[in-house]
This record gives sequence, structure tokens and C-alpha cells, in this order.
Amino acid sequence: MSRYKAIIAYDGTLFAGFQRQSRTRTIQEELEITLTKINNNHPITVQGAGRTDKGVHAYGQVIHFDFPYLKNIEKLRFALDTQTPEDISVKSVEIVPNDWHARFTPHEKTYEFYVQITKPRNPFKRYYSSYFPYKLELKRIEKAIQYLEGTHDFTGFTASGSSVMEKIRTIYEAKVQLYEDGLLFTFRGDGFLYKQIRIMVGTLLKIGNSRLEPTQILKILEEKNRSLTGPTAHPEGLFLKEVKYI
Amino acid sequence: MSRYKAIIAYDGTLFAGFQRQSRTRTIQEELEITLTKINNNHPITVQGAGRTDKGVHAYGQVIHFDFPYLKNIEKLRFALDTQTPEDISVKSVEIVPNDWHARFTPHEKTYEFYVQITKPRNPFKRYYSSYFPYKLELKRIEKAIQYLEGTHDFTGFTASGSSVMEKIRTIYEAKVQLYEDGLLFTFRGDGFLYKQIRIMVGTLLKIGNSRLEPTQILKILEEKNRSLTGPTAHPEGLFLKEVKYI
Repeated sequence: MSRYKAIIAYDGTLFAGFQRQSRTRTIQEELEITLTKINNNHPITVQGAGRTDKGVHAYGQVIHFDFPYLKNIEKLRFALDTQTPEDISVKSVEIVPNDWHARFTPHEKTYEFYVQITKPRNPFKRYYSSYFPYKLELKRIEKAIQYLEGTHDFTGFTASGSSVMEKIRTIYEAKVQLYEDGLLFTFRGDGFLYKQIRIMVGTLLKIGNSRLEPTQILKILEEKNRSLTGPTAHPEGLFLKEVKYI
Repeated sequence: MSRYKAIIAYDGTLFAGFQRQSRTRTIQEELEITLTKINNNHPITVQGAGRTDKGVHAYGQVIHFDFPYLKNIEKLRFALDTQTPEDISVKSVEIVPNDWHARFTPHEKTYEFYVQITKPRNPFKRYYSSYFPYKLELKRIEKAIQYLEGTHDFTGFTASGSSVMEKIRTIYEAKVQLYEDGLLFTFRGDGFLYKQIRIMVGTLLKIGNSRLEPTQILKILEEKNRSLTGPTAHPEGLFLKEVKYI
């Protein structure tokens, strides 16, 4: 048995998310169907570094899977890349130790969130950005976003529906910059809770729009109260950029 | 009666092309449906600067239409932008003289053609680029592309099926550059024949791949023989960038 790590990219538009579910199209299922075919129809299971939601994209999701025998890694990468649908691409494959795990081996994740802020809506970005064509003060967002850096209990920034008990996470870097016709948010941390980034972005936009104060971030962290946040930003703007194992 | 000029952008992926046809979705029809609705269901006809084929995109297509009465142009732009489907956006609207014509008033058009040349295929560009992951010598393409500039009979570079008799056109600028994970071709001219840009790009790629000599361009122009060209490049890579009235 050999364990393989692969870095994949996907356009999340036509998927119900990463994780396998019955009766919907998922990235995990497409990968497993293809790997199982390559393995002469003996089932192969895929583990992802993280679950991305419906509509969320990835430039650098990481997965692992076990194969009963040794494969040429470039041939395997090519087969997996070309035999999966064209909205998934397989960028690299390597052999890793048998106890290496895409999800449980320590790592940091970087997400980007893109918001178009100009009018009219760019038709080429309708599936790849959120849209906020309202008054925004970048300085307010810059001030607020720095409060997110560090180790905090992010209970106030997560949606119900997650089974994760431990809500303490560390954000190493949180920044916002002007990019093309909008704002690009970058968040790098040791992990993120269910919908955390989309709720953080929704809150930051509301702060930029002057309907909340920058210090609202501190209040949400302290009071751990979801009802103090802004709305959850749309999933199309979110990209899993990189998973880096430490 | 007032005549209006509008600059529009569209993602051509889900359209059968610009021009109205029965039983398929076209940009012209979507615009006419919306304008007719705005005009209390009295029919409005749209004229485009050029027809783009199925799958071809536009950043700056120009149209004109007549309205029986004067409208506030920003209100009209907003209504047209927001009431058309989200793969069409309306960037600007202005009033023009009644004899101004999107197609017949003299103008130059700029098209861009984007080809991804790296592996693996970028899933985010599958509808917005052609793909050529083979050996390419940029110098060969640079040499060949300059032969296209100037006034020529482009009969050899057009597909049958066009009713246009006059095949002499002027290309003011033809260039290629490395851009992101591929090549970006730019063509600016007084007009282009049916499939001309896609055939030029297909031929240039074959030259870059050393299966034709750069001087093949001169031969095709001279002999006016379509069978000497390369294949027609895929429509997804083609963008109508700008229409500039002189």
C-alpha cells in the first residue's frame, strides 16, 4: 500500500461542495469515481484537507488516498487530471508516508475572498466573486481586520450546524487589498470554522459601509454572539488558495 | 425618436452567439426582450457593431437602438443592465445622432484571443481560453504575426458560409505576448471576416509548433487558399475587446 498526496484545483460553481453526499455532484465523489476506475474498480477513498461548501473554489486543495501498489506519479497525475471532469484539475501528485494525513497532519490554510465593488457587475466574475457596489471606506476595513489576527475563540463567527466543539483558532495573517475591480481579502490560519470566513467578510463589509464600528470585531470575539455579525458573504467569492504542511 | 448607443459586456458561454436566431439563446434577443419591456411592450430592435459566434465573449461590444421618446441615460443603463440576465452587463449608454449606426459608422475593432499553454488545464479558464499545451516557439509566432498587419485580401483566412463579397481588410496591429499561463493575441483592424481571427490564431499556433513556416502567412494571403491554414482555434478564447468609432 502506498499513500499519495495530490494538490488539486477546482471551479466550485457546478458542485454541491467538496464532501461526498448522496444525489448531488461533489468533488470528492468525482475524484473517487476516477481513482476507483484507475484501480480496476476496487474502491478508493479520498480525504481532503478541508471541506469547501457549495460554490466555493480551490486553487490548492490537498487530498490524500491509498493505492494498493506503487504507481508512476506523473502518469497517475495525468490520468487523474484528464479523467476527472474539466472543472477539476490535478496539479501535482507525490508519495507520502503511510501515516501522513491531508486533514490531521498539522498545516496552515490560506483562503482568499474576492468582492467586486464597481458597477456594473462584471459578467465574467459572476461565479467568482461576491458583489458589493455600495459606499465603502477601505480604512475602516483595514482597521477592523487586524483585530481578527491572533488566537481567539471564533464562536461568534461560525454558523450553527457544525459538530466541531473546539472553537479556538489562530489567524496568522488577515489582510485586505484593492485588486482589479474590487477587494481581495486574504486569511491565513491554522484552520477555520464552518462559514467563518464568509461571516468575517460579511461583517467587514458592513463595517466598511459604516453600519458597524471596527471595534465590533472585538465585541463579537468577546461576546461569542453570532447575532452581532454582518450577513454571511456569498460562497462564490471564496477560494481555498493553499494548504501548507508544517 | 432618439437613438442610443450602448457599450455592453457579455460572457458568451451560454449563448448561441450575438445574432438573433429562432429557438436558441442569443445576446441580441435578450437585449431586445428587455428593451421591449422597458418600452411598454412596443418592439425595439437592436443593432450590434459585429456578430460574435457561439461561445465568443465581449468586454466592449457596441449596440444601438431607437426609443420613441427621450430617456434619462443613467436610468436606462441601470434598467437595461439589471433587467438583462447576469451574463450580460451594460457599461454605458449615450444619445447619438439619428444617422449614427453601430455597424456602418466607420470604426475599428480590437479582439483579444487567449490561449493557455501550461499544464494542467486551468479549470477557471475552461470557458475563457483555448488550450495548447504543446511545444511552442514564441519567436516563430512573433515573426509570422507581423505579416498579417496591413491591407490584404484575407480570403484564405475566412470560412465559407459568409455572404460578404469584399474580402479586403486592414489590420492596424497584430501582436502576441506572454500573459498569465498562456499567450494573448491582440488584433486591431477595420473589420474581420467570418472566423478570421480564429483561423489566424490556429495557423499561428501551428507555426509556433514548427509544423508550418512563418512565411506560410504570406503564402495564404497570396494564394487565398483556406486549405493552407491551420485549424480554426476554439471560440472560447476570443473576446471582442473594443469598438472605437473614428
